[in-house]
Amino acid sequence: MEQLGTRPLADAELHGIDAYWRAANYLSVGQIYLLANPLLREPLQPEHIKPRLLGHWGTTPGLNLLYAHLNRVIRQGDRDVLFVTGPGHGGPALVANTWLEGSWTAAYPNTTRDEVGMARLFKQFSFPGGIPSHVAADVPGSINEGGELGYSLSHAYGAAADNPDLVVACVVGDGEAETGPLAAAWHSNKFLDPARDGAVLPILHLNGYKIANPAVLARIGDDELTALFRGYGYEPYLVAGSEPEAVHQALAATLDQCMQRIDEIQREARSGSASRPAWPMIVFRTPKGWTGPHTVDGEQVEGTWRAHQVPLSGVRTNPDHLRQLESWLRSYRPEELFDADGRPVASVVELAPEPRRRMGSSPHANGGEVSRDLELPAVAEYAVPVKVPGAEDGEPTKVFGAYLRDAFTLNPDNLRLFGPDETESNRLSAVYEVTGKRWLGELRDGDNHLARDGRVLEILSEHTCQGWLEGYLLTGRHGVLSSYEAFVHIVDSMVNQHAKWLKTINRLEWRRRIPSLNYLLTSHVWRQDHNGFSHQDPGFIDHVVNKKAEVVRVYLPPDTNTFLSTMDHCLRTRNYINVVVAGKQPQPNWLDWEDAALHCARGAGIWDFASNDDGDPDVVMACAGDVPTMETLAAVDLLRQQLPELRIRVVNVVDLMRLQDATEHPHGLPDAEFDALFTTDKPVIFAYHGYPWLIHRLTYRRNGHANLHVRGYIEEGTTTTPFDMVVRNNLDRYHLAMDVIDRVPALGTRAASTRQYFADQRTRHHAHVTTYGDDLPEVRDWRWTP
Amino acid sequence: MEQLGTRPLADAELHGIDAYWRAANYLSVGQIYLLANPLLREPLQPEHIKPRLLGHWGTTPGLNLLYAHLNRVIRQGDRDVLFVTGPGHGGPALVANTWLEGSWTAAYPNTTRDEVGMARLFKQFSFPGGIPSHVAADVPGSINEGGELGYSLSHAYGAAADNPDLVVACVVGDGEAETGPLAAAWHSNKFLDPARDGAVLPILHLNGYKIANPAVLARIGDDELTALFRGYGYEPYLVAGSEPEAVHQALAATLDQCMQRIDEIQREARSGSASRPAWPMIVFRTPKGWTGPHTVDGEQVEGTWRAHQVPLSGVRTNPDHLRQLESWLRSYRPEELFDADGRPVASVVELAPEPRRRMGSSPHANGGEVSRDLELPAVAEYAVPVKVPGAEDGEPTKVFGAYLRDAFTLNPDNLRLFGPDETESNRLSAVYEVTGKRWLGELRDGDNHLARDGRVLEILSEHTCQGWLEGYLLTGRHGVLSSYEAFVHIVDSMVNQHAKWLKTINRLEWRRRIPSLNYLLTSHVWRQDHNGFSHQDPGFIDHVVNKKAEVVRVYLPPDTNTFLSTMDHCLRTRNYINVVVAGKQPQPNWLDWEDAALHCARGAGIWDFASNDDGDPDVVMACAGDVPTMETLAAVDLLRQQLPELRIRVVNVVDLMRLQDATEHPHGLPDAEFDALFTTDKPVIFAYHGYPWLIHRLTYRRNGHANLHVRGYIEEGTTTTPFDMVVRNNLDRYHLAMDVIDRVPALGTRAASTRQYFADQRTRHHAHVTTYGDDLPEVRDWRWTP
Repeated sequence: MEQLGTRPLADAELHGIDAYWRAANYLSVGQIYLLANPLLREPLQPEHIKPRLLGHWGTTPGLNLLYAHLNRVIRQGDRDVLFVTGPGHGGPALVANTWLEGSWTAAYPNTTRDEVGMARLFKQFSFPGGIPSHVAADVPGSINEGGELGYSLSHAYGAAADNPDLVVACVVGDGEAETGPLAAAWHSNKFLDPARDGAVLPILHLNGYKIANPAVLARIGDDELTALFRGYGYEPYLVAGSEPEAVHQALAATLDQCMQRIDEIQREARSGSASRPAWPMIVFRTPKGWTGPHTVDGEQVEGTWRAHQVPLSGVRTNPDHLRQLESWLRSYRPEELFDADGRPVASVVELAPEPRRRMGSSPHANGGEVSRDLELPAVAEYAVPVKVPGAEDGEPTKVFGAYLRDAFTLNPDNLRLFGPDETESNRLSAVYEVTGKRWLGELRDGDNHLARDGRVLEILSEHTCQGWLEGYLLTGRHGVLSSYEAFVHIVDSMVNQHAKWLKTINRLEWRRRIPSLNYLLTSHVWRQDHNGFSHQDPGFIDHVVNKKAEVVRVYLPPDTNTFLSTMDHCLRTRNYINVVVAGKQPQPNWLDWEDAALHCARGAGIWDFASNDDGDPDVVMACAGDVPTMETLAAVDLLRQQLPELRIRVVNVVDLMRLQDATEHPHGLPDAEFDALFTTDKPVIFAYHGYPWLIHRLTYRRNGHANLHVRGYIEEGTTTTPFDMVVRNNLDRYHLAMDVIDRVPALGTRAASTRQYFADQRTRHHAHVTTYGDDLPEVRDWRWTP
Repeated sequence: MEQLGTRPLADAELHGIDAYWRAANYLSVGQIYLLANPLLREPLQPEHIKPRLLGHWGTTPGLNLLYAHLNRVIRQGDRDVLFVTGPGHGGPALVANTWLEGSWTAAYPNTTRDEVGMARLFKQFSFPGGIPSHVAADVPGSINEGGELGYSLSHAYGAAADNPDLVVACVVGDGEAETGPLAAAWHSNKFLDPARDGAVLPILHLNGYKIANPAVLARIGDDELTALFRGYGYEPYLVAGSEPEAVHQALAATLDQCMQRIDEIQREARSGSASRPAWPMIVFRTPKGWTGPHTVDGEQVEGTWRAHQVPLSGVRTNPDHLRQLESWLRSYRPEELFDADGRPVASVVELAPEPRRRMGSSPHANGGEVSRDLELPAVAEYAVPVKVPGAEDGEPTKVFGAYLRDAFTLNPDNLRLFGPDETESNRLSAVYEVTGKRWLGELRDGDNHLARDGRVLEILSEHTCQGWLEGYLLTGRHGVLSSYEAFVHIVDSMVNQHAKWLKTINRLEWRRRIPSLNYLLTSHVWRQDHNGFSHQDPGFIDHVVNKKAEVVRVYLPPDTNTFLSTMDHCLRTRNYINVVVAGKQPQPNWLDWEDAALHCARGAGIWDFASNDDGDPDVVMACAGDVPTMETLAAVDLLRQQLPELRIRVVNVVDLMRLQDATEHPHGLPDAEFDALFTTDKPVIFAYHGYPWLIHRLTYRRNGHANLHVRGYIEEGTTTTPFDMVVRNNLDRYHLAMDVIDRVPALGTRAASTRQYFADQRTRHHAHVTTYGDDLPEVRDWRWTP
């Protein structure tokens, strides 16, 4: 890995780029410090300085330089480039650049490209009522806030997917590069098809330091660094230096070289070559806080971790620092960069590409702008016939697989399925009739369904799957991520960030709505037959419902047709996080298509076929989730046989947010409707898929809340039989039936023997299962008998 | 990377190892399939077969081979070796080996090393009432279940830390190797001191396939693979093959070579060399499901993904499969391996090391066995004087830093602090007076506090920090992990697994209790001044409290002395996950040491200095968390001034689990005590640090629950001032005071003007802060006036 020695920039071009860079740097420093006097028309005074100095200078000049040079590349080759900012706390840089090129003002017309607008631009940064300090959704051209580090590269690969003419320049911070998600994402190059996807150009911004420490990759030596990126399958190029002119030339030469390599790779692939290319990547080594104060109060700042945030503190009260700030700002020679009205001068502005090519105006970054709705097959045609509720089993995911197969046919470049190696085990394999699993590694005899252009992306990294999908959605396309319910917690923090992004874009007029993030959790807590306690956790739902109600939806379809209806619905939505939990194992079909569609539309409802309450129940048996629904109906069956006079109402909940108050969630049932379903005075035995207290948290304001008795997962279980799992968590039919008896005093003492009978059945089961290792046939083969 | 050609094993030794391997393989297959007839005394019949065939064969033979060869290495060099099983679903392998060597029977005397015991061993596997299918806590010698993949390597490095004579052999699965946490953990070699720590020998088990796909690292070619591991700073050795004899020789030669390199590296470092070594690692490439059925029903199984779980299915009903299973089992020639009573024959057993060296009996793996309590400084000596509540500010983490500094001095090899580059910003830097930040990368001028043997470990990977700490705790040592509150969600899934591990060891008599996992979350939701919305999430508490109550503790100390008392307590506990949330910013000191210690011991209590209710309040103002406590007291202050006749009781909660029912959590307050604090009939305005509904979820069974009105974080915020943050979430003093007026009807209409006054103050603040960018002085500089 050596630096290229050519000097592609003629003097004029060099000076133009340097001026642009100085302008961006000036605007960045201005954002961090200035409340007024943006053009330094008068000497800086304390009152020109913001009272609270917030932001991150360290990474900013490097980002500014990269942005300036990419502008040159775009103009030179009329290229479509998306900029992904890994070190997203370098917000000032992207704000500065998008204002300079005009994208900022296009999104926020009030922030004009003149002195008034510049003053607004400066003030709003990290300021109450203004914008945050990261490359958040507020920043035009951004799909990666970088608030939490580690996702830039997987986002970049997701964005490049199915965008054959796009180059995604992805700046990876050297702190970020230490994270697991980033370390795994380098391998994304084995899942990018140079023929049908665009290119990703990773740029490792090695400025040497994190908050208070050196960065690991900055201190392993060039030999190891080169080997590492070769090992990851890249051809690394080095750009290093602290002398602007030399770095300008080296960066320009390297970017030219990289773009040429990208063109070659794509040309070869598009004319039929099948080898996996070594894509170029850049190691960009420049000083942290470059061009900022070299030394402050006798300590070196530029080139050290001290430049991470605000190099000069206390500027309002420390006259030396104030003076130093002024000379720092003046060092960029603003008078050469902005005219008397504060407009960037023509020689600076001309570096910016024409409007349609500006990175801050990239339609890919405002994904809803280019997004097409999916063409979806007529879902009713995939529905399974259900003549008698519960008479036959269905395989929800298998049926959905056929629907998804046809959706792939209808949407050849707009839809992808992601997962950590579970598509097959989740019984979605019908999709392989029309597409394959993306694979650009070596092929061997016996490989199954692997294809360079497959629509199914599987890597055993939930982080990478999620990052790819987010990048794909944020640029306007559609997808589904299937994962183990327990292990989707791996991406808890990523889904947080995405939920926050969605909330933010709901408040930004110029941002269009993007396709929803759809989770399909089929290997759920109740059926971990090959695994055990470590694979049992239904808490992702709890995690997601903490996010803003407007972006969160949770569905627990109890059977095949409700599942199909739910998935079809989710694929048509935008700006949501849809969590769908449903097992992949065969399970009873309860509702025919018509009833299923109606039930899903309502989200919660009384199941008449299983109720005998004639509008006046002794008890409500509620259920949410496939296994709890089956156990509830089995409990109803037991109770009917033993206590036929008991009036039972069965309520099934598909859309979990129906339980919440209408004032708290847009899907919440009005109180009157909730009361009509659940009553206000009858005991409700609620069999729930997940942690039982979530139901209390959702319903604590409801009138009948005190009557609710919830059963769910209580962290008991291991590798065992399906029925033993529910027994261990008191969610089994016998226990539910006993709960009913305990809560309906009118049944009187006569019910005591029935209760004992149920308890004995549980004991009998326990003895059987621990001896023979299988559930009793009467449990295993139970069917609802209407 | 080429395979060594030497043949170190003489025939007898080769045959001995091979016999041991065959025995382990036989016992592994037996576990997956057999319910009876363990020694094949009669031809296999369907009733000998388990009704449900569960488990993972694919990785098992490779694990068995590695275990056998490590036994040789241990015996040869009298070495102390810990075995970490990344592909932990290979449970059968570790169960088989520990039974063969005697460790299993030492832990479970009932499972004798004879036919009866073998039958028990077989039956219990993946069987109701038995053991799970992973290398869970039930397996002696395990510190890494591997139920969720990706943590083996960071666990291994944590285990090797401060164990200079230990070699941790860490098998990394090739599926696992695709995960982010594993990809990042290779860099752990920059944080291992060869002089004072032990060694980690990573063994990448490249058997080629995951569940249904090839593994990425198996298909990138040897050039890239070699470069990748050189880039990660290792010297890779290759062992590859499918012919047992050749692989035995190659593996033996390679392990000898690796151990020699480890010895050399340690010798050099311990005699003063300061260079970072390239530690050896092994790429171990053998067929998936090796020695199992090559072909089943015409499809290749051995060497493909089809060998992942159970190669032969339906064995009870398919006579061909039954016959194939029998010949598979007999292919290991069990009659040569076990005597007539089912005891392993002497020539097999003799490969096992002497008891103290057996990997299944490693005291490191049963960490509580070797664990020493910390020597902790007298905490009261660090307490800050508090003459008047709230009169002065304290810096909780800074004060704790001094305590921690002295704890490091007292415990030079038993305590570590982990974090993603935040020790300094968390104001714990007093620790640098006695120790440094661990760093074995290059050193440069101006580097601060970096040291080869530092007790502070910082890498910008929460996963790696958590994995190291878990490995350190599981082997009996102590530690603290400090992290951003929002980003600790990154390890949600890891903490799940650790909580499950702790629950399990509580039920295992032979497992000793290990030091608690202590989280210190100081960069919390309310003070993200340099950041914004992306950094605001208090939901880790919600996540943790879903785990089994017996292992979970959550503390929200409101000031310096309570924080100190809490941390001192946590460092003395075992088998808990302690989550401590407290800001690093200066904040009022409320309690002197005596009151603080008492308050922490109680966990929740009335603050008399702030109450004027004389035992009969009009309203209870409850608070949990530092910022909510300050806002509550400020609200009390406002109310006192405006409505002096109002009787207010202030209740502060430090130990969040006090709120829960005593039947649900061991720390739960009995109802009578809860009622005594909160009353059963008075309005309670509860200012809570996190998502408000958590308080409802914890208290829904309480008598006075309907009177609870909770304020907390509702996902509103961005980069703004500290007071504006609480305003945006309705947690500010004015809003709390307004809440009181709204809920105390006795105040009558006369309070309406006061309410309006508070509302006006909020508006006034909003106008000020969006204009001037700072909080009003009266808010910023507010002090409690007694």
